[in-house]
Amino acid sequence: MRFVSYNTPTGPSWGILVGESVVEQQNLGANAPASLQELFDSTDNRETLLADLASQAANSPTVAVDQLSLLPCVPKPGKVICLGVNYIDHANEGGNTIGDYPAVFLRCSSSLLAHKAPLQVPKISDKLDYEAELAVVIGSRARFVSESEALNCVFGYACFNDATLRDYQRKTAQWTVGKNFDNTGGFGPCLVTTDELPEGCVGLRIQSRLNGTVMQDADTANMAFGVARTIALLSEAMTLEPGDVILMGTPGGVGYARTPSVWMKAGDTIEVEIEGIGTLINEVCA
Amino acid sequence: MRFVSYNTPTGPSWGILVGESVVEQQNLGANAPASLQELFDSTDNRETLLADLASQAANSPTVAVDQLSLLPCVPKPGKVICLGVNYIDHANEGGNTIGDYPAVFLRCSSSLLAHKAPLQVPKISDKLDYEAELAVVIGSRARFVSESEALNCVFGYACFNDATLRDYQRKTAQWTVGKNFDNTGGFGPCLVTTDELPEGCVGLRIQSRLNGTVMQDADTANMAFGVARTIALLSEAMTLEPGDVILMGTPGGVGYARTPSVWMKAGDTIEVEIEGIGTLINEVCA
Repeated sequence: MRFVSYNTPTGPSWGILVGESVVEQQNLGANAPASLQELFDSTDNRETLLADLASQAANSPTVAVDQLSLLPCVPKPGKVICLGVNYIDHANEGGNTIGDYPAVFLRCSSSLLAHKAPLQVPKISDKLDYEAELAVVIGSRARFVSESEALNCVFGYACFNDATLRDYQRKTAQWTVGKNFDNTGGFGPCLVTTDELPEGCVGLRIQSRLNGTVMQDADTANMAFGVARTIALLSEAMTLEPGDVILMGTPGGVGYARTPSVWMKAGDTIEVEIEGIGTLINEVCA
Repeated sequence: MRFVSYNTPTGPSWGILVGESVVEQQNLGANAPASLQELFDSTDNRETLLADLASQAANSPTVAVDQLSLLPCVPKPGKVICLGVNYIDHANEGGNTIGDYPAVFLRCSSSLLAHKAPLQVPKISDKLDYEAELAVVIGSRARFVSESEALNCVFGYACFNDATLRDYQRKTAQWTVGKNFDNTGGFGPCLVTTDELPEGCVGLRIQSRLNGTVMQDADTANMAFGVARTIALLSEAMTLEPGDVILMGTPGGVGYARTPSVWMKAGDTIEVEIEGIGTLINEVCA
């Protein structure tokens, strides 16, 4: 099943995406959770609830997805945990190595961007780079989970563009500022439940394309820390809560490591596609 | 005015602290905001609202603060932005230097801890260190604010203990994991509005005490990046929203830099006191 978030005059809502159409929350029956967060929190009766929603969606009116004012897949996650260097080719191009623990930083929700929303080049930097990533959305509380149980805690997956201001990322040893400019983290086009994807999302093609030119092209099997291992490791330090998001790092081919460097600029279109999930599209503006 | 957050059977609430007593939200009149976040969001009529609350509080029943189940001052901030190396003596003891931009990382809300709540030594590390810090709570939206206007965006101040697992902080170049263990970031004892404190909280004594022994003892005037400059710089990159929190870094005297190193262990009491704000107290447990 595929979920989208969108804005309404009374606040954020959500719906089920079927092709290019959406069954809105208010048409999903009296038992439909009021928010996606409520759906993430309903861990006890998840399967029944999803089956009910699917059967409601099959017989309900729809609206074209283009008619909705989309929001980031999860509009206000409790936390967004990001892995820094998680594909060997990207580690190499940045002169980094992959150790026995992932490089971790956080994104705040004011840095998130909806599918099709404009990705703005900030006033204070033109070093805007793309990073195609797999986003993992947590579906049940994870604390000290083993690697073998970790995937049971996943609700679903989405595409993410961890767009970065490279000069601000390097202002100090801490990357966080360059990763948290307003509205830079594209998150969409939809949240796909785990049953539609291979276990741990392994073996999927992940690409970024800038104005149609392939810039990154990799297989999610090449992540150094896979989804299960990452969840297990993080859950030793902190509780992963329903609705939390983990970004799994980006493969090689980013703009800063090219000769000459490639920066996104006004008028560009950046796409992140993951096989089986969809294509996240953002136009860049001044 | 001084605010506290606490839990109730129906969820988080808030009140006004007067001495050791609290006037609870439900006793503050029909116009009292339902949540502290709602108070932070009410930027247009802030002065009138605070004056109304003060006059209500003067004539309302109270409860002893010890009778309440306190929460972190702001229980679920939109973001908690932390400055890493912001006092020269702390920079020196860690072999760091202070450049022209602050080292920034984020804390997530699952890492926050209430005043008097137990600070647990995690299962996977015993390298638990204290860091006394000034916490700034944002009271109005800040985006591209000048240094001279920045302090108008502050709602108030609190004490913070940015407790850190030093081994996890150093697992990679990114400090984030070591700063985000569950329930490590003490945040209290109360949120004090700006009118009760010097402009920018400059010139206040800040201390940490471990089992009564002074471990850190400094003046907030010695911050390299003051509150106004920090807000101005951060607001160039991201929108600071009402309820967001900024932690201003810690002075010298932390445990890891001592010979031999000092780690907090079960049975210890750690206090963070800032002149004019109060004393944040947490007992350490296994």
